[in-house]
Parts: sequence; structure tokens; C-alpha cells
Amino acid sequence: MPDGNALISGKTIQGTRVYSPAGDDLGHIDDVMIDAASGRTVYGVLEFGGFLGLGSDHHAIPFGKLTYDHSRDGYVTDLTKEQLEAAPKQDETWRENRDWQKRSHEHYGVAPYWL
Amino acid sequence: MPDGNALISGKTIQGTRVYSPAGDDLGHIDDVMIDAASGRTVYGVLEFGGFLGLGSDHHAIPFGKLTYDHSRDGYVTDLTKEQLEAAPKQDETWRENRDWQKRSHEHYGVAPYWL
Repeated sequence: MPDGNALISGKTIQGTRVYSPAGDDLGHIDDVMIDAASGRTVYGVLEFGGFLGLGSDHHAIPFGKLTYDHSRDGYVTDLTKEQLEAAPKQDETWRENRDWQKRSHEHYGVAPYWL
Repeated sequence: MPDGNALISGKTIQGTRVYSPAGDDLGHIDDVMIDAASGRTVYGVLEFGGFLGLGSDHHAIPFGKLTYDHSRDGYVTDLTKEQLEAAPKQDETWRENRDWQKRSHEHYGVAPYWL
């Protein structure tokens, strides 16, 4: 279980559920993305099924938008389903695609990790 | 494959081999440890078998001591086997054990991540 005052294991994060503040289950974290230059964890990759009218899909969200909630044994994000649905479409290049990253951070109102 | 100029996936790091500068295979990364407070990746957990005269074991090393080398498709560390062998013994509390972490960072000559 990730702990807000300690170290969290990448393996443990994988599979942790993500909820809205109201308690809706948005999916689970499938992976974390680490900025090689700084060592910072910059995205949690949310895996979800269904609510966008698609099959299981992946969606990188800024790691700072995930807050661990012990009472739920999962992350809570203040991002809404609507924000997730309206996010810039993510293709296979997103890890290296600064243009997508810029649009994504703008969409979420989160400062870029690379500046 | 982790890329020095891009984002690296926690899942991909898991299993990546670790070499000495001379090319000795020291083991592989089993997990990464993320400081919940800052989001920084602070340790790579090296899994190795045998060279300490033990079975498979785990050893947290400061993440900054791991440099990705494309030609080897793995990490290279300038830590020697002797340094690893002489490192402060790691028990189950190490994730929360600041005393162990202090001794470990001193041993490796790496600035603490928590200051």
C-alpha cells in the first residue's frame, strides 16, 4: 500500500485503483512514467474500460493529480470523467511527443515537467 | 527500453540488467522506489543472486547511481561489488527506516533525497 510519508514501490502502484472525489471508480494505475532526466515520476498511466465508450484503454495523467487516500486504499484525482474524455488524444508517440505533452498539460492545467 | 532523453516506464525498468563499468553483470532491477512527498524516483531495487554468497537478494541503490547505457541495453553503475557487499544491511523496515537510509546514503556518498 503506498504511504504518503514514505517510499512507494512502482510495482505496488501498478494495480492501485483510482477514484473521483465522489468515489466513482475511474480505473487503475497500469504503470508509472519517469522522466529520465530528473528521475521524477511525471505520469500515472490510468487503465480503464468502458466509460469512454471504448474497450480497455490507457491514459497518462500528471502524477501530481493523484493523491493517495488510505481510507480508500487507492488514488483520488480531482480530474473529472469529462476532463479525461476531452483530453488530447494519445497515440503511440506520446512518450516522446512534446507537442502532445504540451497540449495535455495545458488541458489539465498542470505545469510542464520538462521546464 | 529506457531512453535517456524521454520517459521511462516503471514496468520497463523492472527486469533491466545492471552492469559494472567493466561489464560484470550485477543483477537486474526488480522495482523502483518513489518518494511519495516529491514524486522522485530515489532507489532502484537491485535483485541479484550469488555474488554475496547468498541466494537471490534485494538491494536498494540510489537511483542516481544508475545510468542507462544503450549499447548494453541496461544500467551501468560505478558502485563496485565491494561497495555493495559492504553496504548497511537492509531489513524489512528500510522503506521507512531513516536511520538505515542515512547510513546507506553515507556509504554510497549520495546526498539524502529527503533534505
